[in-house]
Amino acid sequence: MGILVHKYGGTSVASTDKIKNIAKKIVAEKEKGHDLVVVVSAMGKTTDDLIELSKKISTNPDKRDLDMLLSTGEQVSISLLSMALKEYGVDAICLTGFQAGIKTQGPHTKNKIIDIDIEKVKSYLKEGKVVVVAGFQGMNEKGDITTLGRGGSDTTAVALAAKLRGGCHIYTDVDGIYSVDPRLYKEAKKLDDISYEEMMEMASLGAGIMEPRAVEIGCKYQIPIYVASSQHDITGTTIRGVDHNMEENVITGLSISDDVLMVTISNLEFKVENIAIVFEKLAEANINVDMISQTGPINGIVNLSFTASTDDYDVIKEVMQQLKKQYQEIDIELEDDITKVSVIGVGMLNQSGVTEKIFRILANHHISFRQVTTSEISISYTINKKDKATTVAVLAGELGL
Amino acid sequence: MGILVHKYGGTSVASTDKIKNIAKKIVAEKEKGHDLVVVVSAMGKTTDDLIELSKKISTNPDKRDLDMLLSTGEQVSISLLSMALKEYGVDAICLTGFQAGIKTQGPHTKNKIIDIDIEKVKSYLKEGKVVVVAGFQGMNEKGDITTLGRGGSDTTAVALAAKLRGGCHIYTDVDGIYSVDPRLYKEAKKLDDISYEEMMEMASLGAGIMEPRAVEIGCKYQIPIYVASSQHDITGTTIRGVDHNMEENVITGLSISDDVLMVTISNLEFKVENIAIVFEKLAEANINVDMISQTGPINGIVNLSFTASTDDYDVIKEVMQQLKKQYQEIDIELEDDITKVSVIGVGMLNQSGVTEKIFRILANHHISFRQVTTSEISISYTINKKDKATTVAVLAGELGL
Repeated sequence: MGILVHKYGGTSVASTDKIKNIAKKIVAEKEKGHDLVVVVSAMGKTTDDLIELSKKISTNPDKRDLDMLLSTGEQVSISLLSMALKEYGVDAICLTGFQAGIKTQGPHTKNKIIDIDIEKVKSYLKEGKVVVVAGFQGMNEKGDITTLGRGGSDTTAVALAAKLRGGCHIYTDVDGIYSVDPRLYKEAKKLDDISYEEMMEMASLGAGIMEPRAVEIGCKYQIPIYVASSQHDITGTTIRGVDHNMEENVITGLSISDDVLMVTISNLEFKVENIAIVFEKLAEANINVDMISQTGPINGIVNLSFTASTDDYDVIKEVMQQLKKQYQEIDIELEDDITKVSVIGVGMLNQSGVTEKIFRILANHHISFRQVTTSEISISYTINKKDKATTVAVLAGELGL
Repeated sequence: MGILVHKYGGTSVASTDKIKNIAKKIVAEKEKGHDLVVVVSAMGKTTDDLIELSKKISTNPDKRDLDMLLSTGEQVSISLLSMALKEYGVDAICLTGFQAGIKTQGPHTKNKIIDIDIEKVKSYLKEGKVVVVAGFQGMNEKGDITTLGRGGSDTTAVALAAKLRGGCHIYTDVDGIYSVDPRLYKEAKKLDDISYEEMMEMASLGAGIMEPRAVEIGCKYQIPIYVASSQHDITGTTIRGVDHNMEENVITGLSISDDVLMVTISNLEFKVENIAIVFEKLAEANINVDMISQTGPINGIVNLSFTASTDDYDVIKEVMQQLKKQYQEIDIELEDDITKVSVIGVGMLNQSGVTEKIFRILANHHISFRQVTTSEISISYTINKKDKATTVAVLAGELGL
């Protein structure tokens, strides 16, 4: 019996009753003889509530202050789970991110784990304790409390598993990884396993189950990540290195994201320098840009579209206003009634006819996509939000997902 | 212009609007040229709410877990106040207890500050920042987050002022220190200043404005502590070393506390060893015992009364049950419908006639007190809660407070 890292998300710890249920589950697992580390997120909507609270003070709160505020959410969860475990007779210790040795760097609210000083966790495991660790947070070298951004708790869990050379179970509110989000397409099939690469693509394209960074770490350290329901006792999906038979398995799944802000800059004078400046300014403002597409220049003029998170709307708007001052001739459009749909499959683009088939399906159903980008293993479209249900249904149906 | 430590309690930061008001006050103070450290408590009833939350998990939660939970309250306050200060154009930095270098030791939920590593706070002050510090919390040498117990934020503030050799302002929901709690006796007089010794006595006897430990530190380092309203711009009271003219000023004030659990052990065989065991067991359970009175032994049997906080009711009950097993002949009574009234004045007990006068007033008004204890500068009575209003009125009135 080795070391296992469990991770429970916000929905799984949304109330004290749910925390008690999780505690019982952990006790049963502990009795099987595993050494357990449990990573938890903030309870239910706590993080959103804290962000709302901060907005009553400032429309654009200082990010270091925001990290200080948000990190309290997980701290509440770990203390309550630790109490609950003791109620069920299991010795436990709870640790904040920094107490668990999680060292991070980067801009506040978007830090990355650079290393984990794992000795403290190990010594508590040796004492037979269940170690409950606050997900989503750490400490930078200045001693500031930091957070890891969206899905940060997954990253915490996988990184701990990597350092401890243990297994990693992500317990969530879905039963596993589906070819298409089952809330959007009822006939979607659950996958027994999926490769790191496909999962990263699905995750970064918005499948919303696993944080791509977490999958990346799993891939780097070859830690299989088991994703399953925290509520039901049903077999989930394992993310691991898999040899696919490409012939049979060209398309793995569909990924759908509604958190899409699409920005289109038109009428920009075509110089590589100009394009570089656009993305430089976005990077300076710590904006993660997602899809980028640029059409070939016509008469020395290019059009450029990119997408980002709607969370960054205000910051991006400001960056665009600065840009407009520098390049007065350009037009800028921000749209947030946008959904991104991605079709994913290893080797898909090398398989003749696949891309064409997808375009054909969309055309047949009069779905007018706005922006298209492709990668080795995916093709993504931005569409109007109102076309989402139809798009998902026709693609999933006709591609047999 | 030197360094000033401000402290704002939970009522002063109960809402985001109140936090904004405090921020404005601090900005005005900063503009006068002071270097400012601001200590804040948790917002309003947050601490109570968190305790309630923990009780849904466990009736007797682990104290280390409880510290982990409770410390989030102040962390929320400091982040919001720091955001608010920046909104008003003042650069600020917020620090948790351990980030501010506050080192503690003792049992969880009742830690004491042993030292402050003040360099970080000093360096931020040098950068011109307002340093916002979470009250009530610190870190022990194991790296666990700890809390300081009731009134701990006052202690944080005075200890920081002592280390920084600065002034200390405690802003609260009262206008200053009164001879009697003005909520209980409308004609009570506000004091311009009061000695550390008298304030400690008043505080430890339940005046509820300042934590006695905080006053103790003020006394030790000779830091004058200014206590005033956070809402109104009225001169408050300064706690400092004062030379009283004893003739004029025999009785300084009345102190009233409702947080009184009175325990009476009767029929105990009189041996010093037995008494020692009683208090040893209470100490082992981390109970702070307040008033102790023992009557002289009769026929080898003693009766013993002591008071403690009603918060410790469950723990004390358990200790008493253990005691009962060891000494089967004893009777134990726990009463919590008790109020403690104390009359305070430096040199009071040396002044002939003062004690007698107090007993006479109580007798004339048929107030049957339960337990009496005396110190150099005070005399305390436990009475039935129902007699509180009368007792306060007649003592304050007839002693001219």
